[in-house]
Amino acid sequence: MTETSAQPRVLIFDTTLRDGEQSPGATMTHEEKLEIASMLDEMGVDIIEAGFPIASEGDFAAVSEIAKRSKNSTICGLSRANFKDIDRCWEAVKHAARPRIHTFIGTSPLHRAIPNLTMDEMADRIHQTVTHARNLCDNVQWSAMDAYRTEHDYLCRVVEIAIKAGATTINIPDTVGYTAPRESADLIRMLIERVPGADEVIFSTHCHNDLGMATANSLAAVEAGARQIECTINGLGERAGNAALEEVVMALKVRNDIMPFQTGIDTTKIMNLSRKVSTVSGFPVQFNKAIVGKNAFLHESGIHQDGVLKNVETFEIMRPETIGLSAANIAMGKHSGRAALRAKLKELGFELADNQLNDVFVRFKALADRKKEVYDDDLIALMKDQETTSTHDTLQVKRLRVICGTDGPQEAELTLSIDGVEHSIDATGDGPVDAAFNCVKMLYPHKARLQLYQVAAVTEGTDAQATVSVRIEEEGRIATGASADTDTIVASVKAYVNALNRLIERRKKTAPGDDVKSVNYRDAG
Amino acid sequence: MTETSAQPRVLIFDTTLRDGEQSPGATMTHEEKLEIASMLDEMGVDIIEAGFPIASEGDFAAVSEIAKRSKNSTICGLSRANFKDIDRCWEAVKHAARPRIHTFIGTSPLHRAIPNLTMDEMADRIHQTVTHARNLCDNVQWSAMDAYRTEHDYLCRVVEIAIKAGATTINIPDTVGYTAPRESADLIRMLIERVPGADEVIFSTHCHNDLGMATANSLAAVEAGARQIECTINGLGERAGNAALEEVVMALKVRNDIMPFQTGIDTTKIMNLSRKVSTVSGFPVQFNKAIVGKNAFLHESGIHQDGVLKNVETFEIMRPETIGLSAANIAMGKHSGRAALRAKLKELGFELADNQLNDVFVRFKALADRKKEVYDDDLIALMKDQETTSTHDTLQVKRLRVICGTDGPQEAELTLSIDGVEHSIDATGDGPVDAAFNCVKMLYPHKARLQLYQVAAVTEGTDAQATVSVRIEEEGRIATGASADTDTIVASVKAYVNALNRLIERRKKTAPGDDVKSVNYRDAG
Repeated sequence: MTETSAQPRVLIFDTTLRDGEQSPGATMTHEEKLEIASMLDEMGVDIIEAGFPIASEGDFAAVSEIAKRSKNSTICGLSRANFKDIDRCWEAVKHAARPRIHTFIGTSPLHRAIPNLTMDEMADRIHQTVTHARNLCDNVQWSAMDAYRTEHDYLCRVVEIAIKAGATTINIPDTVGYTAPRESADLIRMLIERVPGADEVIFSTHCHNDLGMATANSLAAVEAGARQIECTINGLGERAGNAALEEVVMALKVRNDIMPFQTGIDTTKIMNLSRKVSTVSGFPVQFNKAIVGKNAFLHESGIHQDGVLKNVETFEIMRPETIGLSAANIAMGKHSGRAALRAKLKELGFELADNQLNDVFVRFKALADRKKEVYDDDLIALMKDQETTSTHDTLQVKRLRVICGTDGPQEAELTLSIDGVEHSIDATGDGPVDAAFNCVKMLYPHKARLQLYQVAAVTEGTDAQATVSVRIEEEGRIATGASADTDTIVASVKAYVNALNRLIERRKKTAPGDDVKSVNYRDAG
Repeated sequence: MTETSAQPRVLIFDTTLRDGEQSPGATMTHEEKLEIASMLDEMGVDIIEAGFPIASEGDFAAVSEIAKRSKNSTICGLSRANFKDIDRCWEAVKHAARPRIHTFIGTSPLHRAIPNLTMDEMADRIHQTVTHARNLCDNVQWSAMDAYRTEHDYLCRVVEIAIKAGATTINIPDTVGYTAPRESADLIRMLIERVPGADEVIFSTHCHNDLGMATANSLAAVEAGARQIECTINGLGERAGNAALEEVVMALKVRNDIMPFQTGIDTTKIMNLSRKVSTVSGFPVQFNKAIVGKNAFLHESGIHQDGVLKNVETFEIMRPETIGLSAANIAMGKHSGRAALRAKLKELGFELADNQLNDVFVRFKALADRKKEVYDDDLIALMKDQETTSTHDTLQVKRLRVICGTDGPQEAELTLSIDGVEHSIDATGDGPVDAAFNCVKMLYPHKARLQLYQVAAVTEGTDAQATVSVRIEEEGRIATGASADTDTIVASVKAYVNALNRLIERRKKTAPGDDVKSVNYRDAG
């Protein structure tokens, strides 16, 4: 059974750029946010929550720019329950063709205790702030943070107030990832039945995955009447993350027979978005992750045995193509030409202008000289590398030589171009990576600390390319870098320098620590 | 609310060693299986599915040995619906104090078509095989593979036959990871209501996570009357894996108010088991994995802001200690003594004899000389390294020197001890890892292919230890290796040699390809 236009529509509200980016270590750069927003827009996401404008200058700039560039998606910004937050949010989202202000307050006893408001005072605050938001924007979403631990009578009361004050979407977040499907459905059903005016607004669900049930809880809410699901790519988000967009969307598609709802998502764009968000956040996707994990589909040779060969449905409930995964992974060799490369890259989701193609082609040939078979995954790594470096970067790795092994100390010699001028130095360290990074620190002194370092082989074989991801932190600013090379140490230094270049960009834009400066919020939903 | 002994008991059936180990790339060695089984037994798992005895000599040996060593857990082996499989299974499990035979057949139309049996012929086969199993063993579990896509009337009929033939547990697997909570509950409820004799057996649920709902589906089945959950550590398993043990157990604990059931699991052992299974399988756990992911609890400094400081329940629904995660991660320095190391290791789940402690202490001191702060995670890496190497190993890395960088070819010089005799050689390669691995191949020729290579920094800072995990494959035999060192290349070679040592062990035990020899099964539940 497939989705039909006669079925009720469930709106997909993606908060990868807000709740996802808020998760410790997943900070994204301005450019990365713009690119992800553009991909979400193209995929058919109904609402993109682009950030929390008052949280930092960086957040404000990203939300404004995403609003300006938006095509079909509604662009939403988050704000706490005060006029200053809401005004700042509106300043950022107003550039969108379809803007939305999202304002929230914690309604459970535990959360009411933080600003120390009585029930009546909080009710009054909600009335005032939603009214204010609605005076600025026709599209206002209000969230009752920690709704699942709020007294039902009080929750009904405040939802009614928000609706009367002009909220058009009412979001019911399971902020602590606490609920289970039956309870999730019961709460939404209770609200729709009891709250006057409930039929004039859209109810929304926002589930966290602390007990592993975010997807099921979101879908149970939809069955009970919710018509918006808040979710993130790869389930990114604080702690165990949010409901994963790919899971809720594919579950609605695959089990349309028992959950007859439609979404506007082009599912063939899921895999590219998953890869992009994983690269940019530095959060790897585990092999057995539903939908987007390496093992989620049966690609491995030797596995297509009897049953599967006779009828793929025997063990497969969805085809890899549905999420944009091409079945064949063997791609190209050293004799492949420019047109073949362009066609292959297009298939993998990368559309290139001629000058970009030339540069990629040179890199491809260099790789094909060293590796007999260049797989899809090699090309994806190469493109990621291409995307994360630029000839305008302040720092560029020109030459590296490292001596390492069991009889340390390990030594490195590095030539680095800084603003176009080459400098060389040598240094020792605990291990080749430490030695090489020490060279960088001596040539370009900085206080950044390495928070994360990880390497993965792109394909099989000892001659495989290694992709290195690093995350560094300096005075509250976080930057990530990535690079691929058949030499792990070269890839490590390039990834580190790449992260430093991004840090330099961020320094230009924000005062120290500005990004995390102080807005005393936590999970805003 | 906490679990009480008056609440119905839900049996936890762990299939990490069968369904988990069956997932492409997660193959475990004999010793690893024994160790994991012993940890599961100590954690209070009610039934351990230890393997599929007829699948290979290796599986048979592992199930037999686990049965012999079992203490409290019931030990179960898998078998298809024929006498030969069942006999072989019994031969393996009969050594246990509490043995169980598990036999299965695919009952859905798609699965009936594979052996080309009519409904009546399959019903007859079920009667015969379950009777046969019950004649051997009092404890027989029967599974209707792909139950959720089986006609209800036929499913009732075959479940009744299995019960009459003596099955004591009836397992209802969602083989393709297809169901949703309401449907899962409805199916269990339908069976319990309609099948004569249903009240005399235990119904079991076995859910796959293809749509991200395995945990919720398992719990919905329990609410409908199932009293056994089949699951795996970290949700390991084919494709998107099985329901995760840690999620179902913690959900029952945390939401005991709405799901009043008890399990026999000591949850404080969850974290150690999660780490062990991740190391052994080479399947990393993603940061935002529920319960056991790095980000699942809020450890990061700077995060304990207002609300959380005032009341941890504001954003935490469970304490890290509940799953055996100690809150403080700063551990030891170079001045720490033997007693402090022993106490710390005990806290981390490692209990050592005096001679073991001496060896670990030497390694700890060497590490503390290189790293100012030795964290819990450093000690865990060191213990893993300790556990995976032995002075009896055929191959031992004595000395390594590598020269690498941008101006390849990269060169390595390696001294390897082979059966106690030292050999040296040098080689070039594409990258330092390739060059060093080429040395190993020249000194100890073999046909193994590198399937997986990954590196992660154990803690922060450029001087952090790197843990390297590799997986190699030779004629169908798979072996994994891991090592930690501040020098990434040294750790890489040690991990590779470690994997080769395991491969050599396996060669001694099994004929080529024996492990995957051809039993033409796929997901057996």
